[in-house]
Amino acid sequence: MKKADYDLVIIGGGPAGLTAGLYAARARMKVIMLEKVTPGGQILVTDWIENYPGFPEGISGIELVQRMTDQVKRFDLAIESAEVSVLDLSQPIKKITLTDGKALTAHALIIATGASPNPLGVPGESKFSGRGVSFCGTCDGPFFRGKVVAAVGGGDTAVQESIFLTKFASKVYLIHRRNEFRAEKILQERAFANEKIEILWDSVVTEISGLTNVEKVSIKNVKTNEKKDLAVAGCFIWVGTRPNTQFVGDAIKVDENGFIIADVNMKTSVPGVFVAGDVRNTPLRQVVTAVGDAAIAVASAEHYLENLSR
Amino acid sequence: MKKADYDLVIIGGGPAGLTAGLYAARARMKVIMLEKVTPGGQILVTDWIENYPGFPEGISGIELVQRMTDQVKRFDLAIESAEVSVLDLSQPIKKITLTDGKALTAHALIIATGASPNPLGVPGESKFSGRGVSFCGTCDGPFFRGKVVAAVGGGDTAVQESIFLTKFASKVYLIHRRNEFRAEKILQERAFANEKIEILWDSVVTEISGLTNVEKVSIKNVKTNEKKDLAVAGCFIWVGTRPNTQFVGDAIKVDENGFIIADVNMKTSVPGVFVAGDVRNTPLRQVVTAVGDAAIAVASAEHYLENLSR
Repeated sequence: MKKADYDLVIIGGGPAGLTAGLYAARARMKVIMLEKVTPGGQILVTDWIENYPGFPEGISGIELVQRMTDQVKRFDLAIESAEVSVLDLSQPIKKITLTDGKALTAHALIIATGASPNPLGVPGESKFSGRGVSFCGTCDGPFFRGKVVAAVGGGDTAVQESIFLTKFASKVYLIHRRNEFRAEKILQERAFANEKIEILWDSVVTEISGLTNVEKVSIKNVKTNEKKDLAVAGCFIWVGTRPNTQFVGDAIKVDENGFIIADVNMKTSVPGVFVAGDVRNTPLRQVVTAVGDAAIAVASAEHYLENLSR
Repeated sequence: MKKADYDLVIIGGGPAGLTAGLYAARARMKVIMLEKVTPGGQILVTDWIENYPGFPEGISGIELVQRMTDQVKRFDLAIESAEVSVLDLSQPIKKITLTDGKALTAHALIIATGASPNPLGVPGESKFSGRGVSFCGTCDGPFFRGKVVAAVGGGDTAVQESIFLTKFASKVYLIHRRNEFRAEKILQERAFANEKIEILWDSVVTEISGLTNVEKVSIKNVKTNEKKDLAVAGCFIWVGTRPNTQFVGDAIKVDENGFIIADVNMKTSVPGVFVAGDVRNTPLRQVVTAVGDAAIAVASAEHYLENLSR
């Protein structure tokens, strides 16, 4: 068999990539993990994680990633700071070209590049990210017990998560740029019936402001141009997410939102290419689901490699 | 809507049950977790866990469970020491009868009762469990670097895991009671080609012995009755596992080995009954996969309950 540079290349260094690296390194594969900047992924922007089992008091995103990184280093996982520019999956040996022009080859790949929430693109949004601006109700909702928050969006996630927020928040302003939701009718009915939710139709956020944390969201009615400030402790933004798959091209089957389709074994449509975490068409995007995916993806990659080397 | 005692009853208190409890308690469901003895499940018998992400030096099974238990208590999860005797799933409100005769009702259930490895049933097996006797190569293989170990079984798991062990062990005695394996041919070919594996056909283990840790495995040839002692540091037992589903009856669809069949959303064949962890027909049985399943199962249960209360 012609040999590639690596048995396995893992693209992405969030919880899914790090866990794939942990399992692959322990399985003594010839493996490298590529991470664009620094290991971590989206949890680096999550101030405090209370729902990753094993940390009774919670743990900061930064510390959890540091611990996962220390762990893979114990098993000598090779990690390289490199951004993938394009994949060539046309041959059994896959070619990974990096943005610096270098290229690697591998028999198997695990794509674990995650997803990014679509930003609103308004002043204050980046500044208060993790300090009141959030993209995850499950993660951050409980921090707003008894507080007033804003939520932005009109799809299933925005409406369902706004309802979820009312378990904690005293009031949720749900801000939507149109005069009707795209969300399922049943979710809409529930939101309408929820006394803690005040819906602001035809409205867009123009600015998020505060001192050290979010204190105010400025909105504008797109029909009347009327402006208004809302005193809130948080602003949840649910205007869609996008998978980080720019480098993939058309080679791998994706769902209607661009997320990579995987079976229960984390196999994609391309033999030898596996996927883990938020970048796949998963029913839930959490640290726990990402790490579970990753272990399965490595087991599948191992099985694939064993059949190759037969 | 007629109300049950609980929105959700979680059966089982291993990593899957505890994680389901964590997510359900944080979602403010009316939930209780039932655990037969004490929270933990199979990881309590795992001396040291190196592949659960977030613990760079590894963590003992006991400590990890203690931390997960402390974590759910922070969110006021109700936990009861109770063994389920039988489920009645014939009505939308499910009835859970306990072995002490009491009964609970719930709108939704998560079954997270795990699986148990089949024991050999020979002297020394229980005594050295966690001290050389192991049921998990992925978990414990790396502890036997450069050592001689025994492995018992002839199915896919026994043969594949014996090959995995040769990454660490200097030699693996693979002990099988028949004169051929049930495992896939390709796995057999690989085992036959592996110089570190010595296969002992027609042989059964009669005793596992040692001082504080495994030092010796005694075997007997079932055809010749010849007896032999093998000096080994470990004994891996892979003679099948069985799902802990005694209380389920025929109400839920299971696969050919009795594991509960779930879709990607952890839904079983019975509406309102979800499953997580080793008890389901999962491609991999690890702590990371169990916790991932559990988070998805709670999200699905939440969705189910929302539709009920419409």
